[in-house]
Amino acid sequence: MTASGAHTDVHSEVLTALRAALGGRLDTSPEALSAARADKSGHAAPGTPIAVVHAASIADVQATLRIATETGTPVVPRGAGTGLAGGANTGTGEIALSVRAMDRLLEVRADDLLAVVEPGIINADLNEALAPHGVWWAPDPASRAISTVGGNIATGAGGLLCAKYGVVRDAVLGLDVVLADGRLLHLGHRSVKGVTGLDLTSLFIGSEGVLGVIVGATLKLRRIVPGAVHTLAATFPDVHAAAAASAAVTAAGLQPSIMELMDATSLAATHRLLHLPAPEPGAAHLTVQTDGPAAADEAAAIERVLRQAGGDVVASGDRAEGERLLAIRRSMHPAMETLGTTLIEDVAVPRSRLAEMFDEVARVEREHAVTIPVVAHAGDGNLHPNFIFEGPDVPAQIWAAADDLFRSALRLGGTLTGEHGIGILKSRWLADELGEDQWRLQRDVKAVFDPRGILNPGKVFAG
Amino acid sequence: MTASGAHTDVHSEVLTALRAALGGRLDTSPEALSAARADKSGHAAPGTPIAVVHAASIADVQATLRIATETGTPVVPRGAGTGLAGGANTGTGEIALSVRAMDRLLEVRADDLLAVVEPGIINADLNEALAPHGVWWAPDPASRAISTVGGNIATGAGGLLCAKYGVVRDAVLGLDVVLADGRLLHLGHRSVKGVTGLDLTSLFIGSEGVLGVIVGATLKLRRIVPGAVHTLAATFPDVHAAAAASAAVTAAGLQPSIMELMDATSLAATHRLLHLPAPEPGAAHLTVQTDGPAAADEAAAIERVLRQAGGDVVASGDRAEGERLLAIRRSMHPAMETLGTTLIEDVAVPRSRLAEMFDEVARVEREHAVTIPVVAHAGDGNLHPNFIFEGPDVPAQIWAAADDLFRSALRLGGTLTGEHGIGILKSRWLADELGEDQWRLQRDVKAVFDPRGILNPGKVFAG
Repeated sequence: MTASGAHTDVHSEVLTALRAALGGRLDTSPEALSAARADKSGHAAPGTPIAVVHAASIADVQATLRIATETGTPVVPRGAGTGLAGGANTGTGEIALSVRAMDRLLEVRADDLLAVVEPGIINADLNEALAPHGVWWAPDPASRAISTVGGNIATGAGGLLCAKYGVVRDAVLGLDVVLADGRLLHLGHRSVKGVTGLDLTSLFIGSEGVLGVIVGATLKLRRIVPGAVHTLAATFPDVHAAAAASAAVTAAGLQPSIMELMDATSLAATHRLLHLPAPEPGAAHLTVQTDGPAAADEAAAIERVLRQAGGDVVASGDRAEGERLLAIRRSMHPAMETLGTTLIEDVAVPRSRLAEMFDEVARVEREHAVTIPVVAHAGDGNLHPNFIFEGPDVPAQIWAAADDLFRSALRLGGTLTGEHGIGILKSRWLADELGEDQWRLQRDVKAVFDPRGILNPGKVFAG
Repeated sequence: MTASGAHTDVHSEVLTALRAALGGRLDTSPEALSAARADKSGHAAPGTPIAVVHAASIADVQATLRIATETGTPVVPRGAGTGLAGGANTGTGEIALSVRAMDRLLEVRADDLLAVVEPGIINADLNEALAPHGVWWAPDPASRAISTVGGNIATGAGGLLCAKYGVVRDAVLGLDVVLADGRLLHLGHRSVKGVTGLDLTSLFIGSEGVLGVIVGATLKLRRIVPGAVHTLAATFPDVHAAAAASAAVTAAGLQPSIMELMDATSLAATHRLLHLPAPEPGAAHLTVQTDGPAAADEAAAIERVLRQAGGDVVASGDRAEGERLLAIRRSMHPAMETLGTTLIEDVAVPRSRLAEMFDEVARVEREHAVTIPVVAHAGDGNLHPNFIFEGPDVPAQIWAAADDLFRSALRLGGTLTGEHGIGILKSRWLADELGEDQWRLQRDVKAVFDPRGILNPGKVFAG
């Protein structure tokens, strides 16, 4: 719709400049342009990008951004495209700048508990490469087999292990970033401690491509936790009981490595997918794992709490059997796909409010006549309500239900997004959570890094 | 020297406005004005502040900043004044805005592992109040008995336990801040996870009063670690051997809660202070503590590493005896005061470079003919070289030696400051570490929060 004659001229000028600077790294194939429009949220940007740049080096990123700045062309940074908020979706008149091909592990220092990586390395590949050194990078988003470390950092990703082992913010020492005008900055430290000026490293974590492009990261590693893993699978008569049980575990001072909650609809759908006997109607499920030197004692203590809370518990000290018990949880996303199109939401509340938040989900289901299967990282109060609908586009009725749910989370002292980010899909609620003053201040901070507004425009601060 | 007639008129106008808004919270006594000029660095600002405001509420902070903005008067935020970089020092024409009297613990939620505090609460007082709830706030700067939580956050403080339990950045969920123009913002979350827009909470951590005034904090707590604490005290023939031993502990995958290193001069001075027999000439010392369910096993493993590295080791599984072994380390600062005036420096390097950094300290001592006793948080590579001199002001020769040492730390992949901050004393080296581009960008970010430049001017970005 904006492809007027004037626009086309500008685009061909941009393409000429990109081709001269980047040669074979430039991709204008219909397949690449189409793929760059979408991430894993189901949402796709309108129109068609100008081009995809498959950067192979920092110099490629710098060249792209210099041309973009000179020509005022919007740039959308991109990793593996596994985001769930539309943050990497690239539309008409925009360049998709992919760093997926920059995927080298440059340095591992087990003695300093750090690794230096390029941004395109896949999370699981990194951890596989680190394992022989006896170390790992803790952030473990459910997408870890397909998502990049740079994308994990750009979205501030979480995962299953966060309550015990922290989020991305706790696991990055330094970042190399290219600004909108092509300048390369080295942020942060290689040392554990460091407070030299403002913490721009943290500011870039979760910045969703609006401040600059992450082209390198110095990661804070952990030693691999030795010893056995203990797993508990507990079934409860309803989701409120399961949520209350998980809060009781935390309140008892016990710290599982994983504590995942599935509500009745989720549990029924995964059982169907895995050809398991159907659970009791209404039954909800907690999967809990403990690790470390006290894993067995902690599992025993948690088992007592779960039984007292009315849970029917199966326990195992065997790692392989534990993985089998976790398989139900790990089948959540494919199971959802069997129900229809899914909008995966991401609210988080203080752990003690988890049962109340599930009551709110039930209320929203009733009042809006929608089905919202929920899986929750119960150990840290992060819920993923899955809004199910027919067809490719999110209907207004679903957004109305989501809106109601977001406001419930905020009322309970929670947040719109625990780990997926704002992207395009949640930008209209951002000011509701931040307040108008903070919203404007954040936008002004972005303008310091990107005065022409070419980096991921319309994302995060749209509206 | 700048107290010209025009200045005096402006100051009396400011005082009149402050008195009308704040009444008894305003303090212009010579004692208060004199005290506000200095922190614990030994450095004092030139001249005399206009006034000290002892804010008792957020409204007091807002009123002060509104008047400051209207009149263009610089404001220096202040806690207990225990900083070591001159960041809170207040001079001619400036208002010292103390939040020390805002010292309430507003909320403790052991189930959510969070506490809400006012900024003026003393770190040790907070932890005493938290203990009955079975929780604690991990940051433990050596000043914990006298420094405020707000000051700890504003400087990004560290401490002894950081390698195992993290730094301030890892222990804050949200902040309430008042901007230069008096607006109150609520940053961050009460939930463990949260990625709503840019992470301004992290940006304020370590911002040293240049972005806004911290008036409240939601702290991330930990469960008190149960069980015995094991302590090892190891003596080595020289500091290089002690540093190499500490690196060997980390490289072996062992994680002590505390690992403190004292060089020969430090050790001799503390022994003299405590009336203990003099150590062997040149001897250096490591104090190591382990905690948690595997404390005994870890202590035994560490003891083997220390002995292999040539250490003479004393071990104890008794908490009180452990405190006696740590007493030598805790006497470091009083012992330094017996040697002369002290400039306490704060470089940090990757842990594997610790022994090399001690070699650099020895080189600087030789080449500059100065004495630099060093204590180090060896577990995280943070060294505190103490430059000893006569008289109140740091002589040029000492700054030349410090300059040489800072550059050595940067060459080894380290940083100017691990946990004390830049303040006034290290601002001239800031651009050396950040690079000119990042230095300017950080200053531009400050300008978004404080466009008139009234917040802590001349600190951090001076020069």
